[in-house]
Amino acid sequence: MGPHPAVAAIRLAVRRTLQDVLRDADALGRGPSGNDRPPLVLVACSGGADSMALASALAFEAPRLGLRAGGVTVDHGLQPGSDDRAREVVSRLEALSLAPAEAVTVTVGRAGGPEAAARTARYAALDEVAERHGAAAVLLGHTRDDQAETVLLGLARGSGTRSLSGMAAVSGSPTGRTGAGHRYRRPFLAVDRQTTRKACMVQSLPVWDDPHNADPSFTRSRVRHDALPALEKALGKGVVEALARTAQLSRDDADALDAWARDAERAVRADASDVANVTTGTGVALDVARLHALPSAVRRRVLRRVTVAAGSPAGSLFARHIEEIDRLITDWHGQRAINLPGRVAARRQGGTLVIRQV
Amino acid sequence: MGPHPAVAAIRLAVRRTLQDVLRDADALGRGPSGNDRPPLVLVACSGGADSMALASALAFEAPRLGLRAGGVTVDHGLQPGSDDRAREVVSRLEALSLAPAEAVTVTVGRAGGPEAAARTARYAALDEVAERHGAAAVLLGHTRDDQAETVLLGLARGSGTRSLSGMAAVSGSPTGRTGAGHRYRRPFLAVDRQTTRKACMVQSLPVWDDPHNADPSFTRSRVRHDALPALEKALGKGVVEALARTAQLSRDDADALDAWARDAERAVRADASDVANVTTGTGVALDVARLHALPSAVRRRVLRRVTVAAGSPAGSLFARHIEEIDRLITDWHGQRAINLPGRVAARRQGGTLVIRQV
Repeated sequence: MGPHPAVAAIRLAVRRTLQDVLRDADALGRGPSGNDRPPLVLVACSGGADSMALASALAFEAPRLGLRAGGVTVDHGLQPGSDDRAREVVSRLEALSLAPAEAVTVTVGRAGGPEAAARTARYAALDEVAERHGAAAVLLGHTRDDQAETVLLGLARGSGTRSLSGMAAVSGSPTGRTGAGHRYRRPFLAVDRQTTRKACMVQSLPVWDDPHNADPSFTRSRVRHDALPALEKALGKGVVEALARTAQLSRDDADALDAWARDAERAVRADASDVANVTTGTGVALDVARLHALPSAVRRRVLRRVTVAAGSPAGSLFARHIEEIDRLITDWHGQRAINLPGRVAARRQGGTLVIRQV
Repeated sequence: MGPHPAVAAIRLAVRRTLQDVLRDADALGRGPSGNDRPPLVLVACSGGADSMALASALAFEAPRLGLRAGGVTVDHGLQPGSDDRAREVVSRLEALSLAPAEAVTVTVGRAGGPEAAARTARYAALDEVAERHGAAAVLLGHTRDDQAETVLLGLARGSGTRSLSGMAAVSGSPTGRTGAGHRYRRPFLAVDRQTTRKACMVQSLPVWDDPHNADPSFTRSRVRHDALPALEKALGKGVVEALARTAQLSRDDADALDAWARDAERAVRADASDVANVTTGTGVALDVARLHALPSAVRRRVLRRVTVAAGSPAGSLFARHIEEIDRLITDWHGQRAINLPGRVAARRQGGTLVIRQV
């Protein structure tokens, strides 16, 4: 008799991810045939059902693929007793035979709000642990339900296709010392939360419910407990799956359009001879006629790229700024120079659009 | 003292649309200077607040721009007394000095469910009335709230960027007899429902609330009364605006990617000499290497275009079909031919992908 279907599902998801990790490691000449010890894969574990299920599946699959498995838990220090909790999670990871198994304590700042600050601190700690152990990858327990929530949070920003693309299955900077492609992997993006809970239950794994997850002062918690159930009630049970699929399709669309904008940016740079008088300093001159010929979705991306490159902070540059620059091209009636965040200005001079620091 | 802000807002929105209609009519040589009577603009009016506000703004603005204003209401015959109701709406349109003002009765079929069937019947009737009167445009009262609902309904389909693009500000086939660009215009896509209600109230316009709008057996009604309020509670009051902005950005992105796919399709068609043996019958041969080099978002659109052109009905061709064809390119391991709706098959032969009717 095979494992319970929920356990089979989480193991399959992790196996596929580990095969990807091995392929990437092989491509870099770090296969099990080398002199090194087998590559190490870490799981980031909060002690909740999703990441405990992930830890259990990693512990099962890694040795079968000639990989070492370890685990790390991050103590955010935001609740009394969080250090005890972290030690408890480490002992649970050790019980799964994960080695190393360790807790790291972080100090959460305030930048960007409580959720963003905790995330920033957490990834910095995970990066440090991964570097220190030379890990080939760090697995994260985000499920399809988390993905659906992330899409809804992106939708609320109303900033388009990229903001609807959720979390990537593979992300993070290429790892430095280990050099094994992208560090973070999310094996469970197509696995639902119910399956991870079931897998923990049938494997008798104790799990901890993070009280933050039910705290209505967190936006994500309100999305999880109020907004998504209401959407399911109105639109049917397929909503979570539809949102997760939207993430993947939006990511592909945004990638394609970004690639187009990258190419288009080169093509619309005005010839130096035409604009010798305007290209002094940091900035760039663009050919208005060529910009005008682009689809608006591509043109706006080009304008954003150029404006950010000229020194405007991406986080302060909103859609309305880009639209105002765009009107210098599509609705020209002699507007004055447009002032943009980061002391950047956009100005039309005849058939040329100049964007530069002032 | 000027009009109430709500009335000013609806009039401004309508004025801008009428200026667009005039520009399009002028471009076709049908300006007020011709021998014809002034162009006619119709409003489609249910008697609800949105379309009554639209009718009142059209009645005010049209004469000032040298246009004639008329109105039409559609009796769907779905409720007892709907004919009395339609006559009442006509008298309200006449009270606004709209001429012609008429009711048309339609028979609602069953295809696609009650909402789709009513919509199909309604647009057929509006097309007929517009043709009969030679109208330059038909205005529709959809508001920003309707747009937000439409985006959520598209999100539930999970079929990507195009399905998130909501309703277009300008749509419909180019009008036949009148030849004045696209027939349907939605001046209120950036106006919220509260403003149209307020505008009716301060102008003492009687409005009728369609009981369908509150009937929870309609998906849109559940989205309006349950899902959107829950989303606003979780994510904040800006959700409707964010959804409407998502519609516009998604539409632009989808248009750009469709244009790319149209160009790419030509570029990936295999040379006839290579595939003389496979291009018999309806179908097309594509170069696998060139397909592989495309971004996946563009490649999938090309595959969908070609498959539909080969005879697969667009409505029966789902994402999973396209993904299966895509694996012939990205994950080739000698798969058999793939059978698709409409007796179309996709088959890889060496470096060529053949999609054709079988």
